[in-house]
Formats: sequence, structure tokens, C-alpha cells
Amino acid sequence: MTNNTSPQNQFDNKAQAWSARFSEPVSDLVKRYTASVDFDKRLARFDIQGSLAHADMLAHVGVISAQDLANIQKGMQQIMVEIEQGQFEWLLDLEDVHLNIEKRLVELIGDAGKRLHTGRSRNDQVATDIRLWLREEIDISGQLLVQLRQALATVALDHHDTIMPGFTHLQVAQPVTFGHHLLAYAEMFARDAQRLQDCRKRVNQLPLGAAALAGTSYPIDRERVARTLEFDGVCRNSLDAVSDRDFAIEFCAAVSLVMTHISRLSEELILWMSPRVGFIELADRFCTGSSIMPQKKNPDVPELARGKTGRVNGNLIALLTLMKGQPLAYNKDNQEDKEGLFDSADTLRDTLTIFADMVGGIKVKPENMRAAALQGFSTATDLADYLVKKGLPFRDAHETVALAVRKCEESNCDLADLTLEQLQEFNASIEADVFEVLTLEGSVSSRNHIGGTAPARVKEEAERILAETRG
Amino acid sequence: MTNNTSPQNQFDNKAQAWSARFSEPVSDLVKRYTASVDFDKRLARFDIQGSLAHADMLAHVGVISAQDLANIQKGMQQIMVEIEQGQFEWLLDLEDVHLNIEKRLVELIGDAGKRLHTGRSRNDQVATDIRLWLREEIDISGQLLVQLRQALATVALDHHDTIMPGFTHLQVAQPVTFGHHLLAYAEMFARDAQRLQDCRKRVNQLPLGAAALAGTSYPIDRERVARTLEFDGVCRNSLDAVSDRDFAIEFCAAVSLVMTHISRLSEELILWMSPRVGFIELADRFCTGSSIMPQKKNPDVPELARGKTGRVNGNLIALLTLMKGQPLAYNKDNQEDKEGLFDSADTLRDTLTIFADMVGGIKVKPENMRAAALQGFSTATDLADYLVKKGLPFRDAHETVALAVRKCEESNCDLADLTLEQLQEFNASIEADVFEVLTLEGSVSSRNHIGGTAPARVKEEAERILAETRG
Amino acid sequence: MTNNTSPQNQFDNKAQAWSARFSEPVSDLVKRYTASVDFDKRLARFDIQGSLAHADMLAHVGVISAQDLANIQKGMQQIMVEIEQGQFEWLLDLEDVHLNIEKRLVELIGDAGKRLHTGRSRNDQVATDIRLWLREEIDISGQLLVQLRQALATVALDHHDTIMPGFTHLQVAQPVTFGHHLLAYAEMFARDAQRLQDCRKRVNQLPLGAAALAGTSYPIDRERVARTLEFDGVCRNSLDAVSDRDFAIEFCAAVSLVMTHISRLSEELILWMSPRVGFIELADRFCTGSSIMPQKKNPDVPELARGKTGRVNGNLIALLTLMKGQPLAYNKDNQEDKEGLFDSADTLRDTLTIFADMVGGIKVKPENMRAAALQGFSTATDLADYLVKKGLPFRDAHETVALAVRKCEESNCDLADLTLEQLQEFNASIEADVFEVLTLEGSVSSRNHIGGTAPARVKEEAERILAETRG
Amino acid sequence: MTNNTSPQNQFDNKAQAWSARFSEPVSDLVKRYTASVDFDKRLARFDIQGSLAHADMLAHVGVISAQDLANIQKGMQQIMVEIEQGQFEWLLDLEDVHLNIEKRLVELIGDAGKRLHTGRSRNDQVATDIRLWLREEIDISGQLLVQLRQALATVALDHHDTIMPGFTHLQVAQPVTFGHHLLAYAEMFARDAQRLQDCRKRVNQLPLGAAALAGTSYPIDRERVARTLEFDGVCRNSLDAVSDRDFAIEFCAAVSLVMTHISRLSEELILWMSPRVGFIELADRFCTGSSIMPQKKNPDVPELARGKTGRVNGNLIALLTLMKGQPLAYNKDNQEDKEGLFDSADTLRDTLTIFADMVGGIKVKPENMRAAALQGFSTATDLADYLVKKGLPFRDAHETVALAVRKCEESNCDLADLTLEQLQEFNASIEADVFEVLTLEGSVSSRNHIGGTAPARVKEEAERILAETRG
Repeated sequence: MTNNTSPQNQFDNKAQAWSARFSEPVSDLVKRYTASVDFDKRLARFDIQGSLAHADMLAHVGVISAQDLANIQKGMQQIMVEIEQGQFEWLLDLEDVHLNIEKRLVELIGDAGKRLHTGRSRNDQVATDIRLWLREEIDISGQLLVQLRQALATVALDHHDTIMPGFTHLQVAQPVTFGHHLLAYAEMFARDAQRLQDCRKRVNQLPLGAAALAGTSYPIDRERVARTLEFDGVCRNSLDAVSDRDFAIEFCAAVSLVMTHISRLSEELILWMSPRVGFIELADRFCTGSSIMPQKKNPDVPELARGKTGRVNGNLIALLTLMKGQPLAYNKDNQEDKEGLFDSADTLRDTLTIFADMVGGIKVKPENMRAAALQGFSTATDLADYLVKKGLPFRDAHETVALAVRKCEESNCDLADLTLEQLQEFNASIEADVFEVLTLEGSVSSRNHIGGTAPARVKEEAERILAETRG
Repeated sequence: MTNNTSPQNQFDNKAQAWSARFSEPVSDLVKRYTASVDFDKRLARFDIQGSLAHADMLAHVGVISAQDLANIQKGMQQIMVEIEQGQFEWLLDLEDVHLNIEKRLVELIGDAGKRLHTGRSRNDQVATDIRLWLREEIDISGQLLVQLRQALATVALDHHDTIMPGFTHLQVAQPVTFGHHLLAYAEMFARDAQRLQDCRKRVNQLPLGAAALAGTSYPIDRERVARTLEFDGVCRNSLDAVSDRDFAIEFCAAVSLVMTHISRLSEELILWMSPRVGFIELADRFCTGSSIMPQKKNPDVPELARGKTGRVNGNLIALLTLMKGQPLAYNKDNQEDKEGLFDSADTLRDTLTIFADMVGGIKVKPENMRAAALQGFSTATDLADYLVKKGLPFRDAHETVALAVRKCEESNCDLADLTLEQLQEFNASIEADVFEVLTLEGSVSSRNHIGGTAPARVKEEAERILAETRG
Repeated sequence: MTNNTSPQNQFDNKAQAWSARFSEPVSDLVKRYTASVDFDKRLARFDIQGSLAHADMLAHVGVISAQDLANIQKGMQQIMVEIEQGQFEWLLDLEDVHLNIEKRLVELIGDAGKRLHTGRSRNDQVATDIRLWLREEIDISGQLLVQLRQALATVALDHHDTIMPGFTHLQVAQPVTFGHHLLAYAEMFARDAQRLQDCRKRVNQLPLGAAALAGTSYPIDRERVARTLEFDGVCRNSLDAVSDRDFAIEFCAAVSLVMTHISRLSEELILWMSPRVGFIELADRFCTGSSIMPQKKNPDVPELARGKTGRVNGNLIALLTLMKGQPLAYNKDNQEDKEGLFDSADTLRDTLTIFADMVGGIKVKPENMRAAALQGFSTATDLADYLVKKGLPFRDAHETVALAVRKCEESNCDLADLTLEQLQEFNASIEADVFEVLTLEGSVSSRNHIGGTAPARVKEEAERILAETRG
Repeated sequence: MTNNTSPQNQFDNKAQAWSARFSEPVSDLVKRYTASVDFDKRLARFDIQGSLAHADMLAHVGVISAQDLANIQKGMQQIMVEIEQGQFEWLLDLEDVHLNIEKRLVELIGDAGKRLHTGRSRNDQVATDIRLWLREEIDISGQLLVQLRQALATVALDHHDTIMPGFTHLQVAQPVTFGHHLLAYAEMFARDAQRLQDCRKRVNQLPLGAAALAGTSYPIDRERVARTLEFDGVCRNSLDAVSDRDFAIEFCAAVSLVMTHISRLSEELILWMSPRVGFIELADRFCTGSSIMPQKKNPDVPELARGKTGRVNGNLIALLTLMKGQPLAYNKDNQEDKEGLFDSADTLRDTLTIFADMVGGIKVKPENMRAAALQGFSTATDLADYLVKKGLPFRDAHETVALAVRKCEESNCDLADLTLEQLQEFNASIEADVFEVLTLEGSVSSRNHIGGTAPARVKEEAERILAETRG
């Protein structure tokens, strides 16, 4: 038997039977049901990258020859070109991205291609591919988060002293500045970026070398492969290496949080753009009209983004459900890890890209914001604080102001509209300087500490973030 | 201005601006982000069906002419052919399936096409399309559930007296028959079918006529449209009609339950096929091998199906999250209802189809089942029941048998291996007839009531289900 | 051995070892971890109800004597009293509600108590208890849904012609009436009630008689027990009967939908009460204030209810995750079914009760609603429809009106503010009667078909619902 | 009006009306529905800790006097004692832990107590409390993870060379050692610990000082408070500080992963303890029996733990749903953050505690493991690797061995049972040394690289983990 012309290659007769051990072919429906090539072919670039690092190591430790390595490198180069040019023929019969590429490699370079799978299994191969792919997605999303924070800080700087009502319970609470409000989101996205970085540490560990589940009897050098592929370390247990999908779940959980923040920002953009509120306009290019109502301009992008929170939460639950109760090591269930993960990564990327652009297109209507801040007694807390400074315990001051507010409600006026005499009826210690603290500007300026809404502080924060994100 | 050559059709300049109300075109990224045509084009058949019923009604009440109706019918026929033959050009610029089809209709038949959208909106149109599509999916799944129950009952009939251990806590509990075990799943799938039928009632209500959200000023006849499309009734509130997605969520919840049942059956098939258990083999066509381990034959189908429980649970959560807190009436968020819904329906269909086939391919190994039933003192309860019949209160009998089991464990033997004398040490009332109740056959036969595992009962149930499903 | 003084009762030494088969006691932490009595004791009433029906049947078929039955009935009566008066001592050592009650029964009546467990197991016992409890919860929730719909219809009738803007995308779309808007929710809650009724059919099946998993060798009469307990039928497969939790999941899914509707209504109440919108006030008794801002009146109830959507969705996922991949028949995992189920039922009950009350306490501000309806060109569709009636195809009419709207936006006026001459610039066929369709009243009245917002229709619908719910 | 005897304290008449601004009392049902004191009273210790740090700062910056501070400290000390001794009276009327404690403080020390709330709000107060509490929970869980890893490594060291079958797809794949298998879990729990540490960084930021949402006009020193409470930093935006619940969600996601690992380990323990598998026994103290089947010994603890994965996944979804689409800043919805979070933390703590104990109580049955490893051709890959070393490309070797396996299956024997001649029929290059690689010991020893199952490696890893965890 000469190896070169062996009729026994495992995949030669895959259409007839999975391997020589099987007595009937896989049914067509089963093929379609179990194949992953339709969605995992997007991993091709990373599959080839991993294979090249594996081949390099095999040659280095002497398991394959230098000639084999050269052939593999040449074959893979051609395959990459074929894929990029859309000429690569993906076959459902070959199940997945790995077997499709390997089959083509054997066609191109013969036995050297058959030697590539020495000392590895699809179990550790696919785990490596996903980690390489996900690492890149994390890095891209990290960049997009920087851009989005930059956009937020830019608008915030422009509006560091534009006064709007701060809401709690969607009731007017206290005046804040629009810049301060936007920077709240910059904080959220900063945490998101940090969280993705933490996740990256656990993504960036090399499973290759675990083979099917137990390691391999070949004298492999896993550290070398890790260095070639720029992994931070190697997975230290082969059973865990092939069955671990923590990193995918952790990433999906991080995406759910980003999208939760996006959903909150979206909710506000939609509210602010509603005609009764009228705080902002979104640029026309982010809106669409109605097929029946000619006057409509709808904030489609934030609405759709708000809705997409659902899909990423769904992907997270899908993955958690998938892994629940699975015995070690690899089970076919794990194939279901990809579509949800891909979808969360794509949703994240598209949404961040579009939001970084859209935030810059917010047109602010300061007069409406101001009018709203004057509704709802937004400086009532300032009056209470004023009374405290005059010697009242806070709880008594609170009650005193509540009485004044009730009076105003009955008279349909604002606190600032009461005369000094009227105010003094509630507490005799009130003096003329009270009207200063009852203005919107007085109120916001007084909240002048780290995290407070004083315009000077907001400017400082916006500049800090701009400096950080431009870095 | 002659209508026929009007330059003002809403979609003529869609690439420049959404409508005359807009000052800049939608950006390309926004187009891609907000377009649904990639996934909603599968609704085309139902969109046309709905449009034809709408046009028929418009003609009937005199809003459009008989000639318009004839033109619309002819145009739609051609569009259907173009779609089926893959010649229809779907444009992202036209956002969705509705505008794509309408645009083509206007190209084909001119102004009559522009009149079709009279008295409706995309909001009620898409709701109608999804309901028509989902009704069909429910009917197909109902059929598949019948087939699956038939397959289960067929195998159950063959094995109505094949004894296996019944497990609780994966510990041997009492002997049951394999047929009895399979029929448990037939019950689950019967409930699933019933649940889908209940859901169908709420799917099969006509939203068309709600227009954008408030109804229309045209003298429409909604009952006529409902009759044409075979809906059970019309939605009685226009705001609800365009914003309701309950039916999609209820369907997804029902699918989650079906897949939960599938996941339990899958878990058992995988366990039963594990070599240590060895109760069954699955036909080769439902299994695949390993890229590295030549001896492997893996139960891929049940494993993958078990994993797919995750995705349908995820889809359910995605839809619930989507609808949470949405103000009335239609919001763009709702566009996110489709992909998850489609995916759950497809997963259901494929899984039921493959399981109906796979169940018939189960090869039973009765000797292994029997051997397992003899492990673990599966007739201990029968001994306790025997003692009760001899006059002991159940709780005392239970304790007596527990002592006997402990003795057997220490001597590494089964209860049936004890001599009469040994048994009598535990309770003096035990007589020779005890050995009858300690046999597996005696045990299963004695459970002879509705729902019990007695072979006669199992045969009866299997035949009942076969009669019902063949009907 | 006399039964009465038997030292061997299974639970006598439970603190030492689970049964005679065990060599060491369960550790304290394990006891606490695995015990359910803290939360399942609320099932006591149903546990007793089920036990009495079981005992009645045992006596009827001759497994226990009439005297035993009488003793059991008397003992249970006393236990019920002890529980109601808070004198019953619940012991963690006895794990659950079943063993606690049985232990007390044996204390009270001796051997007859030990005989009660003949022919059943805790597996079918607990399944029966939960179903009895859940059936009652469904009936109570059904009543509450009727009350809530009644409250909605009552307010809707009062406001069948109060005009407000109908929103899509939170942009003003077309005028509707406030009554019409509220009736959308009455439709949702009608579906919810129907869904719970459908669920009830599957809840109301008797598992008792399945014993541990295989049925029992006693000559039980399950149909009799079903009749006594008013079940619709008996579970037809014992393995399914003890492991089925579909009914709990289906109920939780139905609750998630109710709470999704509540969350949407809540979102709107909060929005409507926000000062910039100002459509309604909620009665003070449903609101609270702020610990720091004296002027605040916060819509706490709808906010909290909106938040509670999260917990019921969580309970649903918890149950689905729990059952995923569980092999038959009963596993201890199933004990985790209760807390989530209880929590969803309690959340539903409390929320419906409070909402039925709160809806009646909505104070409407019609002038603000009207002002809002005049913002945003809400009658633009009416103008388009007018043009269609003049002969324009709808798509051309739509574009014509879009141009007019753009013109108005630039001039900062409403469509109704344009002169006839200005309107005729957009289309020459416009005549003086156009101003009729541009009024809010003209617009809503014209939508006069089933489901439309015409006040006459809304009145009709509200009266229909009131008649139905008073029934 | 003298401040000292002011009758106007905000909470004096809380039973009559929320504050002077309200005209009717909160209804009893609303009180119960909205109160949180039943579950948030567990935060009391942290609420007091935060209040003391706040008071210290207020005194330091001169907002309250040294005497006030001393009074507050004394009052709080007494309150802490009252709570610990169960004498503190919690009132539903006072809504939450904060108002209950403050009310008592005012009772005890008068006006100084009323001054405590100066410059803060319940919004930032509760956020501080939860973070303090969660930080402690994370630290405790971190310790428990160390103990669990220690327990795993200890058993792994004992069984570093105990051979069992490694499974993929629950089919025998290749031999591994039991120690190696257990260490896979030690890796998972190491990642969990790391993940919790990363989460801690984001928990450990001080929100206090954000007041209601905008900061405060008092000259507060947030850095001082942060130092006192050992926070790593201060939240840099007040709106974000009061509305952020990311840290709770991130923690719940981390708990879901821990419990996912626990569910996998549990699944395996249950499988391994099933009589057909028979790899292990769990100590009696972790098991319970059956109320009907006297022979049963059920692995209750791992089953229940597996089920509890559901509840923590549910809690995660509850929190994500809760926050979705919430506008800034604080809304009452957020009160719903606590119960789920508490439940996940409690579940984690109890489960880790019990597992750390239970793992040590695993009794291994090496003979059953070995017997299982000899089923299923577990050394087939070794034969393929042997052929590769003889010059065959891997893919051809794989196919050759598949043929040999099929032959063995037909003859009902193992590969090692074939004679040299029989083996040579499959490939002529096979020599006598082949039998060495076909032994279990040969197979495991050959997988001798980082992460491989070679006993020497397993020993090394177990020792490494023991050294690390003892540290």
C-alpha cells in the first residue's frame, strides 16, 4: 500500500457513509440539520490562521517535514484567495468549515494535507477558531465604544451648560445640564469597554493541543502555537479546553449590558423627539416616514436598537440554556453556540457604529428644555437646602417645602412666583436671597463636586473623556 | 395633472429622500440596519394573498373599480411567478417585502397598483401577513406532532411488554415497560398539539382594516376580508390590532415546551445509547463519527436537538423583552419580532420531522434493559405493598423493606436472592407467594389501572393513540 | 408484632438517618438546602384536600376500613384548624408539607395515618397539590381580569369621545379617542383571560395514582378521585404524570403576557403623567413622594408593575431551564418548580387587584390631550384620503400631502391653518369641504367600522364589554 | 417656630399622607405592593455603615456639628444592637430599611437624626448599601470557590492515575484519569473566581454624593467617604450613579456561569452514581430516600443544584428585563433589583458551601471505571496515531482503524483482542509493539504535555492548585 494513492482517505466516501465504521449514509435531512457550514464558514480566515500555526509547530517538532509545511502554506494561501474571491465551493456534505477547507487542501497538495490534522481534533480546532474570531470582534467593539464616547463627550461639551429638567420617575426632579445627562451614558459605555477587556483575557487562551478531549501522544509544543497566534496563555486542562464556552457566554452577557445602555439612550431619544417633549430632533438620515401618514418622521434607528436588546438577551439565554447540565467533554449541542454569538457580535458592531454617527446628529432645542425645567418645581430641593442652611433639620425643611409646593399647585404657579411674604408664611427665616437659589442657573451651579451637574464640572468631565478617547 | 403620469409617486425618489417631507436620504448604514426585506421576503406569498383579499373588498365596496381589481390580480399573479422562479429583484432601498411588491405592481399595472394601499397601512398589512404565515406553520407542526406520536406509539406497541428499569433520580425505582416509557412522550406531544390549537384561535384574527392605528375613513368591509382569508374573526380594536404580538409570543412559548420535551427525550436517547447503559442503538443515518477517533458513532441528532432548546427559549425571551414597556401603537421595535419567530418555527418543523423519522429507527436491546432492571432492587416497593396486604401499615412496611435492602447491599445480592427464611427474619408474615411479587413481570403486571405500566394497559394506550393519529 | 406499637415507622428516626437503608444522618446544611417546607407549606390546604379524596377512594375500594377513613377525616380536620390558627409546628427535619402533615396525622390517629400513603407517593401527591392550588389561582386571576376590563370599559365609556393624539413611534399619527385607547388594553386582557382558561384545561388533570412513577398494585379508582376533586380527567401515563410541569410553565408564560400588557399600560400611564405630556393624573393613593425632593409625586405603582415584568419573565426562564434535558421520571430538580410559580401567581394577583382599582382613579385632562392632537399634523392622512376620493391614486396623494406638511413645518403652522388657495397649490382639485376632514372631530368620526376609533363605535364596544363583564 | 420642636417632620404623619404635598394616604394594598422593607432589611448593617461614613464626612466639612455626629454614632450603635437582638420593630408604613432606621434614629436622638439625610437621597443611599453588601458577598464567594477548588484538587491528587473513560457525546472516546476529569472543573471555578474579581472592581465605586440625581449643593467630600468605606473610587456622574445597576447584572451573569459549571458537575455526579454506570457513590449525608420505594438512595443535592441553575438564570433575565429601556435617572422599577440579586447570591453561597463539602465525600469505584474504559474501543485513536508514526497520513490511518473497529464490532471483541495477524490485515506495517499503545495505561501516559491527561501531568496540576489555594 503506497500512502500517496491510498483509496482510504476518510472523506473520499463521505456521501456513502460517515466513515468505514458506518453502514448507511447520513440522511439528507440529518445532513442539513447537523451541518454548520452555512454559518461557520465565516470562521474560514481564523481556521486557516490556526491551521498554519499548528502546521508550523508540527514541522518545528518534527512531526511533519519542512516540505509538508511549505505545501500546506501554499495550499492555504490559494484557499484563502479562492474564499475571498467567492470561488470556493462549500459543500454541505462536508459538514463544516474545517472539513471543507481540509478537503480542498488535500485536493491541492495531496498527502501533506492529510497530515495536517495530526495531533488535533475538530473539537480543539473549532474552539481555537471561535476564540480568534471573538478576540478580533472585541477589539473592534472596543474601538467603536471609544468613538461613541467621543461623540457623546463632544455634544456634552457643546451643551455643558444647556439646562434641562432632570427626571426621576419621569417627573421633573431637579435641573441638570444636557451635557451632564449625556455624560451619564459615557460612563456606562466606559464600563462596557472595561468589561469587554476583562472578558478578552479569558477569550485569549489557547485550546489547541487538547485534541479530542485528552491531549495527544505527539510531542506538541503548545506554547509555541500560543505565541504564534498571540494568545496570552494555554488552557491547562484538555477536557475543559474542548468543552468550555464560558467566554462566549461572558461576551454575550457583556453585549446584553451594552445593548441595555443603548436601549435606555434610545428610550430617551424617542421621548425627547416626541412632539410634546420636543427636546431634540434627530437628523433626517436616521429616520423614515410612514406608508400611510404623510407627515410622519419616525425615530426608526433608536426604536429598532431598543428592540434589539431583546435579541441579544435571547442569545445570552440560548447559550446558558445550551450549556446547562452538559456532561464533559464535547457534545454536539455545542455547535449551537455559534449563531447566537455571531448575532450578538454583529448586532453590537452595527449598533455602535450607527450610534456613534447618530449622536453627532442630535439637534438640541434648548428653549423647550428650559421651559420644561420650569415646570414641576425643579428647584424645590434647593429651597429645602436653603432652609437647612438657615438651621432647620432636613426632614423639617422637606416638609415645609412640601406645603409650599402644595400651595403653588393650588394657585397654579411656580415656587419662584411666590412673593417673599408668601414664602415667609412657610418659614420666617426666609430672606430675599432665596430667589437666587430658586433659579435654574443657581441650582445647577451649586452642585459643584465630582459627579455633580455644575456646568464647570460637566465641561471638565467632557474634556477629560475627549482627551482619553483621542489618546 | 393626469394621474397616470404623475411624477409624484411616493417611492419614485426613495433613494433621494424617504418622502417629500424629508430633506436628506437615509444613510446606507441606516438602510441596512432598518431594512427587513432580507428576512421578511419569505412572507411574500402571504402578503400577496392578503393584498388580493383587500383588493377584492375594495372593489366590492366600490373604492376601486372592477378593472383595477382585475389588473391587480393579474399583476400579482405575475409577481408570484417571478418570485417562485427566483427572478424577482428584491431591493434594500425599498425596505421590506410590502414596498418591494407594491413597487413592482405599479411598474406592471400603473395607477391601479397605487390604489391598492387605499385604506390600509403597512402596520396592519404586516400583522396580517405574519398571522397568515403562522397559521400555516401551526397546521404543519400539528401534522408533524401527529406523525411523531404515531411513531412513538408504533414502537411502544412493539415493546408494550419489554421490561426496563423505571428511574427516579436516575436511580432504579421500579420496573416499567419500554412501551410505557415512550408513551409518556406521546402524552407530552399530545398536550403540545392541543396547546398549538389553542394558540391558533388567537392567531386567526384579522388585523387588516386597522390601517396605521385608528382605522380608516373608507367604507371597508372587514368581515368580508376575514371570510376570504378564512380568519375566525376580526380584531376589535385598531390600536391593539397593529401593536399586538401576543400570538407570536404565545407560539414561541408553545415551541419552547415542545423543544423542552424533545430535550428530555434526547437526553434519554443519548443516555440509553451510552455504552454503559446500552439500552438502544440509533440507526447509523442519524449519527456521525469523529475527525480523530475512528471508533466513534455519535448521537448527533438528539444532542443537537437538545441544544436547540436554548435557541427557542432565547427567541421567547427576545420577544418578551421586545414588547416590554412599549407604548401603543406601532413602534419600529416590532420589526424585531420576525427573525426569532421564524427561527422557532423552522427549528420546530425540522426537529419534529427528523424525530418522527428517528424514533422509528430505534433498535432496542431488551436483554440490557432487563439486566438493568434487576440491578437496584426495583421490586422493593412490591415487597412493601405485599407486607401492607399482610396487615402492616405502609410506613412500617417501608421501613421493614429498607432494612432488607440494606442487608442485601451488604451481601451484594438482590431481594429475590434472599431465602424465605431470610425474608421472614424481617417480617414473620412473609410466605412463599412473596417470590411472585418480586419478579419483574409480576411487578409490572400488577400496576394495572389507567396510566399504569401493566403491559395490557400499555398495549391499550398504544392502540388508542394509533387509532387517534391514523384518523 | 402489633401494628399499633410498631417501633419501625419510617419517620421515627428521621433525625438519625433518612431510613433504615442509610448509615448516617443528612447533614444540617443539606437538610436546609433540600427542604421545601418553608415555601411548600402554603400548599397545606390542598395537600389535605387531596389526601381526603385519596382516603375516600381507598376506603371505597376496600384498601382501608371505614373506621380508618373516619379517623383520617377527623385528624385532618384538626390539622387544618391547627394550621389556620398558626399552631401547627412545621419541622425542617420532615422536609416538606407532605411529611409534616402525615407525621402529625400519625401522632393524632396512629396506624390509620400510616395507611394513608398506601398506593401513592410524594411524587404524585405533590403534583396533585400544585394543580389544585394553581387551578384556584387561575380562577381568581380570571375574576380579577374581568374586574380590570370592567374598570377600563367604564373609563372608556366616559371618554368615548375625548380626543387625544394616537401615536406611532411616539410621534403624533392620527387622532383617536381616549376611550378607544383604553379599550385596546381591554382586548389584551380578554385574550389573557382566554389563555388562562385554555391553560386551566391542562392543569385540571389528575396525576394521583401514578404513585412513584409506574402506578400501583392496589386496586385504585382514579376516576373517583378525579370526580371528588373536580378534575376534568386523569393523566394517562404514570411516568408523565409525575414528571410533567408543562402546566406550570404554560401558566408562567401566560402571566408573562399579562404582565407585558401591564408594562405597556404602565409605560403609558407614566408618560401621560409626565408634566410635559400632562394627559392624566393618578390618584394620590397610588403615588409616593421623594425623601429629598419635596415637590415630587411619583407614579410608583405603574413603575413597580413595569419592573415586575422582569421577575415573571425570569420565573418563566427559570422553569424552562429547570426542565430542559431532565430524564424521566421525577428528579429532585423539580422541587425548584414552586418558588417561581408561586411568585408569578402572587405578582399577578397583586398587580391585577391594584390595577383594577387604579384605573378607576385616572383623572383625565382633556384639554392637554386636545392640544397635543393639534401638534404634529395628525389629520394629514385625512387630507390624503380626501385627495384619493378626488381621484388621485393613494401613493400620489401621500406624496402631495408630504409636500404640504413640509411647507407647514417651514411656516410653523398646521395644515388647517393653510388657506384654500395655498392648499390648491398642492392639488387643484381641493375644495372648501376639505376643512371638514382636517378637524379632529371629522377625523375620528370618519373611522367608523368595527375596530375603528369613531366615538359611536367606541361607545358600542365599551358597552359590549361592560355587559359581558357584568354578566 | 423653633426648629427643635417642629411638628412638621416629614414622617410624623406618614400614615395620613406621604408628605404635606399629598391629599390622601397611600392605600394599604399600595403600601404592601410598594414597600421593600420585608426584603431590604437585610441591608441594615450596610445602611448603617454608609450612614456613619456620610455623617463623619458631614461633620468633617462642617455641615453638622461634632455633637450631632457623636449622637448619630451612639444612636446607630443602639439600633444595630436592637436589630441584632431582633428587637427592632420594622414598619411597613415606613416603606424601606432607610426610613425605618432613620425614624428610629430620630426617636433616639432627635434633630441630629433629622440632619443625617442632608446632602443625600434614598437614591444614592440604596445604591451604596447594595454595593457594600455585594462586595462582601463577592469576597465570601471567592473564598468558597477556593475551598471548592481545593477539594477538587485533593480528590484529583488521590486519583491522578485512576483510569476512566473520557466521553464525548456520552460515547467512550479515549481513556483519561479521574483526577484529570475533576481538574477540568477546577479550571472552570478558577475562571469564575477571576470573573467575580473583575466584577468587584465595578461594584466597588461610591455612588453616595449623587443625591437624588444631580449632586448636592452642600460642600461634600466624596473622596473621604470613599476612603472610609474602602471603595476604589467614586462614580463620576450623578445621573449614572443613581440609575446604574450594571454591577448587579454583571454579578448575576457571573453567578449564572458558576451555576452552569455546578450543573455540569452535578449532571456527571448523578450519571456516575446511576447503577448502570456505577463510577462513584456519594456519602449518605448528601442523599435522601423515597417515601414509597424503600431501596432508594437519591443524589438530591446535585439534582437540586442542577435545578437551581434555572433560578439564577431567571434572576439574570429579570434584571436585564427590568433595566431595558428605562429612562434616566432613578425609577421605582429599580426596587425590583433586590430580590433576584439576593437570591442569586444566597444560592451561590449555599451551593458552593455544600459542594466543597460533598466533593470530599465522593467514593470512587475504580474497577467500574476501568471496565467502562475497556468498552467502546477507547484506544482506537492510539492505533491511528501508531499508524501515522509508521508513515500513514492521518486521514488514511483514521479510515484504516475505522475498518478495524467495524470488524471488532461484528466479532464482539476489543481492538486489543485482535491478533497481530488480524491487525496486519488492515495495515501491513503493524508490528508487535502495537499492543503497548492499545493498553489504557499506555494511552493516558502518552498524552504528556500541558493540559494532557498523563498521570504525571495531572499530579503536577493538582499540586499546583493545592499550593495556590492553600496560599
